[in-house]
Amino acid sequence: MNILYVKPDEVGEKQIQVTSPEDIRHLSKVLRAKVGDKVPVSDGSEWEYVGRIEEISEDGIVLSIVDKQKHGRELSYHVELFQGVPKSPKLELIVRKSVELGASAITPVYMDRCVNKPSGREEKKLVRLQKIADEAVKQCLSPRTPIVHEYLTFNDALNIFSEFDFVIFPYENEENVTLKDFLLTEACREKKISGKIPRIAVLIGPEGGFSTDEVEKLESLGIRPVSLGKSILRTETAGPATLAMLMYAFEL
Amino acid sequence: MNILYVKPDEVGEKQIQVTSPEDIRHLSKVLRAKVGDKVPVSDGSEWEYVGRIEEISEDGIVLSIVDKQKHGRELSYHVELFQGVPKSPKLELIVRKSVELGASAITPVYMDRCVNKPSGREEKKLVRLQKIADEAVKQCLSPRTPIVHEYLTFNDALNIFSEFDFVIFPYENEENVTLKDFLLTEACREKKISGKIPRIAVLIGPEGGFSTDEVEKLESLGIRPVSLGKSILRTETAGPATLAMLMYAFEL
Repeated sequence: MNILYVKPDEVGEKQIQVTSPEDIRHLSKVLRAKVGDKVPVSDGSEWEYVGRIEEISEDGIVLSIVDKQKHGRELSYHVELFQGVPKSPKLELIVRKSVELGASAITPVYMDRCVNKPSGREEKKLVRLQKIADEAVKQCLSPRTPIVHEYLTFNDALNIFSEFDFVIFPYENEENVTLKDFLLTEACREKKISGKIPRIAVLIGPEGGFSTDEVEKLESLGIRPVSLGKSILRTETAGPATLAMLMYAFEL
Repeated sequence: MNILYVKPDEVGEKQIQVTSPEDIRHLSKVLRAKVGDKVPVSDGSEWEYVGRIEEISEDGIVLSIVDKQKHGRELSYHVELFQGVPKSPKLELIVRKSVELGASAITPVYMDRCVNKPSGREEKKLVRLQKIADEAVKQCLSPRTPIVHEYLTFNDALNIFSEFDFVIFPYENEENVTLKDFLLTEACREKKISGKIPRIAVLIGPEGGFSTDEVEKLESLGIRPVSLGKSILRTETAGPATLAMLMYAFEL
């Protein structure tokens, strides 16, 4: 059975009280749980439990805790997506899928070829996107609390990249170095040897792709493009696909 | 610049006449092409061209052929998705993303835990899904002509699996053998050695997952489950994610 993701304050010493209507619905309707079922539960930060369902109603679900242990489901890497602002409503889909596929944060970035320009409505959009991210992580059995960061300009994003161990920059004009080449031979080897969890940024262009100016700025920072293969992926596919590939490379 | 995907009958000896309104829009609006630009063109089956744009208008685009060669963009594997019928309209998203990520065919499969049951409206849905697949392949620089096959029952799908070299069966209860283990050690090694293009089926359960009965039937055919890692993926994410992982494994 899939995991149930609860808030830490719903967890007591011996019981877990599920009170959120969404969680109740998720458990009873989506996961089809019944009294007596054992359910893996995550508090989203530190602990994993196995709960046995004792009571189930529309108002709440009570589980007795039959096992409790430290969360073991962290990914062995930290990855954030920097996404060229796409036409709406693609960003919602991108946030949902990216969180499912391991992203700890998503930052929308205004780039030269974005059709959508800064509108002043970003604050409101962020609230909705954060809600989508919160919903998506429930599915994942993950201690991440995903964050949707404020919209950035491309130049501001460039300034942040130094905080990462490496930046993955899929570019359709790159024909030689693949993402696998990059991960196996270039950036990762050193980071893997160091034994730390690598901090990875994935940078995806908008529908029109990266401008020449943007590519030059990236290369001037030593950020080299990689190929994702022969298929040309849409902007809303490229980020989740890259994240799935990272999962394959690091986790499987 | 991304590829332009045209129909074989639009290609002449020396020129390519783009007449489809969608292609004209794609080239002029999405790809932002101008007279003099060189554009990679695929006829979707056999040939790749480089065309130089000579005329561009709302009624048509004329390209002179400056290079012509056999298509080199085939994937080194053939993969079809068998997707447990999800709640609508997820199947449209799944078809679109799966074609982008390399699927040659998608077959919706009615499984025990599908919420949607056979309705008699499948024929009409297939027309729409095929249109989505046709649109999606335009993005891909691929000689594939993706097919959306008729809805099958689970038992009918089982009968088809013998046509494939192997079946990838991601299952959230599998904790030991990952997709990578499977590809690196079990099924693939032999197929790779044979040098043929492997024919792969990917089988994804619906929202409720596979029933015990279905898992037993698969295992009785020697089809073993694999894990996609620590994340629990939604049904509409699992197929595209598996396809992205196959792309990483086989193509990069």
